[in-house]
Amino acid sequence: MAAWSERLAGVRGVLLDISGVLYDGGEGGGAAIAGSVEAVARLKRSRLKVRFCTNESQKSRVDLVGLLRRLGFDVSEGEVTAPAPAACLILKQRGLRPHLLVHDGVRSEFDQIDTSNPNCVVIADAGEGFSYRNMNKAFQVLMELEKPVLFSLGKGRYYKETSGLMLDVGPYMKALEYACGIKAEVVGKPSPEFFKSALQEMGVEAHEAIMIGDDIVGDVGGAQRYGMRALQVRTGKFSYRRKNWDFTVDPGRLTLAKSSGRSSPAVRHLRMGSQPWAPFPVNVGKLRRTTVKRELKAKTNRLHAQMFTALFFTVAERRKQPRCPPAGEWRHVVFSL
Amino acid sequence: MAAWSERLAGVRGVLLDISGVLYDGGEGGGAAIAGSVEAVARLKRSRLKVRFCTNESQKSRVDLVGLLRRLGFDVSEGEVTAPAPAACLILKQRGLRPHLLVHDGVRSEFDQIDTSNPNCVVIADAGEGFSYRNMNKAFQVLMELEKPVLFSLGKGRYYKETSGLMLDVGPYMKALEYACGIKAEVVGKPSPEFFKSALQEMGVEAHEAIMIGDDIVGDVGGAQRYGMRALQVRTGKFSYRRKNWDFTVDPGRLTLAKSSGRSSPAVRHLRMGSQPWAPFPVNVGKLRRTTVKRELKAKTNRLHAQMFTALFFTVAERRKQPRCPPAGEWRHVVFSL
Repeated sequence: MAAWSERLAGVRGVLLDISGVLYDGGEGGGAAIAGSVEAVARLKRSRLKVRFCTNESQKSRVDLVGLLRRLGFDVSEGEVTAPAPAACLILKQRGLRPHLLVHDGVRSEFDQIDTSNPNCVVIADAGEGFSYRNMNKAFQVLMELEKPVLFSLGKGRYYKETSGLMLDVGPYMKALEYACGIKAEVVGKPSPEFFKSALQEMGVEAHEAIMIGDDIVGDVGGAQRYGMRALQVRTGKFSYRRKNWDFTVDPGRLTLAKSSGRSSPAVRHLRMGSQPWAPFPVNVGKLRRTTVKRELKAKTNRLHAQMFTALFFTVAERRKQPRCPPAGEWRHVVFSL
Repeated sequence: MAAWSERLAGVRGVLLDISGVLYDGGEGGGAAIAGSVEAVARLKRSRLKVRFCTNESQKSRVDLVGLLRRLGFDVSEGEVTAPAPAACLILKQRGLRPHLLVHDGVRSEFDQIDTSNPNCVVIADAGEGFSYRNMNKAFQVLMELEKPVLFSLGKGRYYKETSGLMLDVGPYMKALEYACGIKAEVVGKPSPEFFKSALQEMGVEAHEAIMIGDDIVGDVGGAQRYGMRALQVRTGKFSYRRKNWDFTVDPGRLTLAKSSGRSSPAVRHLRMGSQPWAPFPVNVGKLRRTTVKRELKAKTNRLHAQMFTALFFTVAERRKQPRCPPAGEWRHVVFSL
């Protein structure tokens, strides 16, 4: 394993996910994750460029920034890359008129978009708006189109609120894809276009940037595919009981925030607690061979090698650290930048 | 192409789908499809055994049979194979206690099932019950289980009511599968166990039975995989603008109800209007090559041959008969049995 200093060499820009990294949403707007306000402040005082890269699609950027500022974060609207404005740009460029299945909180972002006589559907994290009636309406609009076009603002499976895990837009995107026999266009992480625009707005090249997030698919996998480095926090929806393997992640380049409470030396070998990471092959004798076989069948050959590597990697992790450590570890990494 | 007489040789039992074949649901319970009441009566007067094989999961069998009888059908509860009773059997056999996400109309079928401290989830066509809150609850129950088990009563994409197309349980099954990273167990068509129990109740072997339905996947594909013959009606959700290709269907054995109004001779070569079916290869030069390529990539090699065959087959059909013919054609076939 490479040392931290090596892993972080040449980083000029930091992309921060918001939900699950800076705060957990919930009653009364949610709560900042312990230490994250100070970490952001410290990042912004450093030589690094900082940008907030979110798939938040329940709130407009104005409302999101308002909430974050109330929680104590130093953030402005211009520093946030969010999927709704990106979707509006695409709709205008392609002359599309959407039927919107979105949360009322984000509807204002589409004020300048013609929604008459729709020729596409846009879905976002609509929360309670994902009623049967609304889903059926979106389905019917799609089925009436000669070439159904569906945009999904992100494709997250779920996110964490203070009250527990909540379904995100991804499952509803899958529902409409299956119902109509189509493939949605994702606007947001992990789409390469989305990372591209965030990096352009920050003026940083992909190889000079690191993405910090809690989603192994949207944040880590997406960033890596676009040539960035990535760091998965153990806050938000992070779980050791991963059911959602994602084999687009390159484990050789996956960096997990270390769980040790020690912050000095801040740059050290990537490790869990006091144990260095096991190099593979580790013993997977007792592990879920049937799952592996099933997955093997389902995936194309191209991904097999990556998949096995990811499996070994996560197995080692799970064995050494069965319980999820407390929140806030990524700050140690930030402090070492 | 084989003649009708050849295709139907040795048939001793007929399995009839209900929704979209006998009636279209909707306001006030729905309406019988023209001629279907007489066709069922005629079938039951014949030497053939008849069974109703449905994925209906909004209504209990009692309510479904009550509705069909009000519409004029000669049907009794004991003649219906439906997924809810089949699911109850599985739950009991495996000692599972379900969290139910089902329509109130079918809840009574689960009266004898222990639903305390759930260790699995059962979803059915819940209609308006597919609220965000209910879906999230089912999701949370699954995520809390060490080994999440999800049963889906059928996996239909949509069905047709008199007011239009309606989302079925399948899209919601896909949503939960994606959210939790799991694979649901389908109880109902096209599951082999389901056809097996229907045939056992009828006392007929698979090779002696024909399934009549409007769903190319659940009815036709499922029946063929189980060694039965199948006939797709052009009523219900049948559409020439198929977006949902299913390549588990064996087109060599796919029988479409003929659209000709002529009922004599009832047994003839399978054809559309007055044109005999084109043998393949037909010219697909102008056809959706990109779609084919995309599908090719997505499927495993094992299915490629079938897929191409299905494509050629349906292309021929579409060219010769661009508009959907009126309802009720399958009766001609019934009359020829």
